Amino acid sequence: MVDQNAVIAAAGDPAILPSLRWDEPPEGPVLVLLDQTRLPAEETELVCTDVPALVEAISTLAVRGAPLLGLAGAYGVALAAVRGYDVEEAAGLLSGARPTAVNLGYGVRRALDAYRRVAGRGGGPEEAAAAALAEARDLHRQDAEASARMAEHGVALLRELLPGGGYRLLTHCNTGRLVSGGEGTALAVVRGAHRAGELRRLWVDETRPLLQGSRLTAWEAARSGMAYTLLPDNAAGSLFSAGEVDAVLIGADRIAADGSVANKVGSYPLAVLARYHHVPFIVVAPTTTVDPGTPDGASIEVEQRPGHEVTEVVPPQVPGGVREAGMGISLAPLGTQAYNPAFDVTPPELVTAIVTEHGVVSPVTGDAIGDLCSRSRQVTIS
Amino acid sequence: MVDQNAVIAAAGDPAILPSLRWDEPPEGPVLVLLDQTRLPAEETELVCTDVPALVEAISTLAVRGAPLLGLAGAYGVALAAVRGYDVEEAAGLLSGARPTAVNLGYGVRRALDAYRRVAGRGGGPEEAAAAALAEARDLHRQDAEASARMAEHGVALLRELLPGGGYRLLTHCNTGRLVSGGEGTALAVVRGAHRAGELRRLWVDETRPLLQGSRLTAWEAARSGMAYTLLPDNAAGSLFSAGEVDAVLIGADRIAADGSVANKVGSYPLAVLARYHHVPFIVVAPTTTVDPGTPDGASIEVEQRPGHEVTEVVPPQVPGGVREAGMGISLAPLGTQAYNPAFDVTPPELVTAIVTEHGVVSPVTGDAIGDLCSRSRQVTIS
Repeated sequence: MVDQNAVIAAAGDPAILPSLRWDEPPEGPVLVLLDQTRLPAEETELVCTDVPALVEAISTLAVRGAPLLGLAGAYGVALAAVRGYDVEEAAGLLSGARPTAVNLGYGVRRALDAYRRVAGRGGGPEEAAAAALAEARDLHRQDAEASARMAEHGVALLRELLPGGGYRLLTHCNTGRLVSGGEGTALAVVRGAHRAGELRRLWVDETRPLLQGSRLTAWEAARSGMAYTLLPDNAAGSLFSAGEVDAVLIGADRIAADGSVANKVGSYPLAVLARYHHVPFIVVAPTTTVDPGTPDGASIEVEQRPGHEVTEVVPPQVPGGVREAGMGISLAPLGTQAYNPAFDVTPPELVTAIVTEHGVVSPVTGDAIGDLCSRSRQVTIS
Repeated sequence: MVDQNAVIAAAGDPAILPSLRWDEPPEGPVLVLLDQTRLPAEETELVCTDVPALVEAISTLAVRGAPLLGLAGAYGVALAAVRGYDVEEAAGLLSGARPTAVNLGYGVRRALDAYRRVAGRGGGPEEAAAAALAEARDLHRQDAEASARMAEHGVALLRELLPGGGYRLLTHCNTGRLVSGGEGTALAVVRGAHRAGELRRLWVDETRPLLQGSRLTAWEAARSGMAYTLLPDNAAGSLFSAGEVDAVLIGADRIAADGSVANKVGSYPLAVLARYHHVPFIVVAPTTTVDPGTPDGASIEVEQRPGHEVTEVVPPQVPGGVREAGMGISLAPLGTQAYNPAFDVTPPELVTAIVTEHGVVSPVTGDAIGDLCSRSRQVTIS
């Protein structure tokens, strides 16, 4: 069951609404989500008291972003366990809510395995539920710690590349608190620079077609009190020309073994512009993003999304976020075919550095990526 | 007075609705405009029987595009003259409808001068009105001829650069019949290639923030039966990467004496991508676009447009086109500042060729531009 509570963040505390939080009011434990489909018009929390409500929130994109979906999955299993529902059934429902979201399945499995371990050795349902919740909290903490480390390494890199501070940073899509249990990836670095008084301006690409920049990154920047300016993606060229960009910081959906970076469509043109203007192009992503099974950029299959995301615009005020052709306001002639790749691939030679929670890879080569993976495995094992 | 007639173009005749036409029904002469604010949702003609109606159509952007505004101005003066209104007053009203539109003033002056010449040597009002109308028609014919010659030169250039045909051409903004008394500039070349059976696909940049690509170029392409595909501007990089673009064709707002090209924002990133991928970047523009008084790209002042064009979207169905903050659907947090330059500047070294009605300039250098200007003056004088 979902209760909707409009919550206004108190002045002076820009961090008041986390993207996802576990709460235990007298009525019983709940998972509370910031409803991302209502942003930036409204800051509304969804209170999920059971797994079907959470599944609905996942499938309508009220909660989104790879690491955050992992947390939603893990806490969802814990919620079912703590509330005494069928945990195996809940895990199946959650995993099926967005079948292509790798992190969602990962989060579900982690909490479910913890639950089964305790149940398997004869522990009672309460003990098993506590184990599932502890695992979800553990994942949450790991995610936040990874963000914090990426921010540290990223800020150090900026200081090295751009001595003197006063950075004017350009970012694309949304890579902040809204996709993470912590402060995110690229936007965590920006936030770190801002906190250190070293951010002069954040240039926010609107990120067509789904406008994650306008709707989400601008909202996060405003909430954090950063000096930020929104721009149409195609106006970035003018900023580079005018010498107004000191570095580009983006996240990554997947990093191939050779260091090729798949990220939101529009990242690659920024990489080419950055190279042409001798501006650092920095990718910030946790090591879990590296996929050693994908040898190079050409092996990355690019998801093609429906054309109506380009030919129609859906007002953010439309609740639910279930996007189907014909729901929005038409921007193009009926029957127009659209090319709408979800992401693009930037070859390693255009990437100045990859910032991870385990340190910075620069220059970006297959060997350096290999070293990073073995370092990260050691850390995981230790 | 404006009459609105929804006209459905007959199947099989994609050319049925010109952007602007002079008509002489029994009720008296009129200027008929295709209402561009309603595209692509509706094809509606505005019938202007007097100058105030035409002024309204100009100021609400029902008619737009530099050369087309010149024609509207000239025919507007003729309309006032033929209908027996005060011609000097009409000329003043028309020139003031969009004060920064250079071509509008130019068209008004040409028809007004023709009117005055006849009136000044004692000709009667009917004779003077006929002279104004003849001048408007002359300008119209010149404009259409310039388009036809640019198309010829452009198609010849494509054949030279890309032997074998089957071109996949990428364009930005709208440069076709909707901005011209003829077939336009870059889109006239595309249309020429299409007519010759040499166009495999037209890639249409949507052209944020005002979406002239989605709304207007896609409509023209559909009407002409071209194979076309719309894309978010930032997806062009993926097409270049995949080797799916054979040439970029764009128009120009202004060309400086050194060959720097000012055009709709988003043109410069395409030029950088084209260079990186060794793809020809071709500018198509009449010689009147060359401004010898502007020495170089740095001397071009870039118009900064209101931020609400980026932070809000106005449905094409909203009639009138008067765009003010708060009229549209909000896409970003309230109070978001936006960077919204109207155009960008591409340096001559990134331009493969400039196609004009007097021939092709390639390579693009200050000397070559100078030669072109003297050639075009000779043609005008002869």
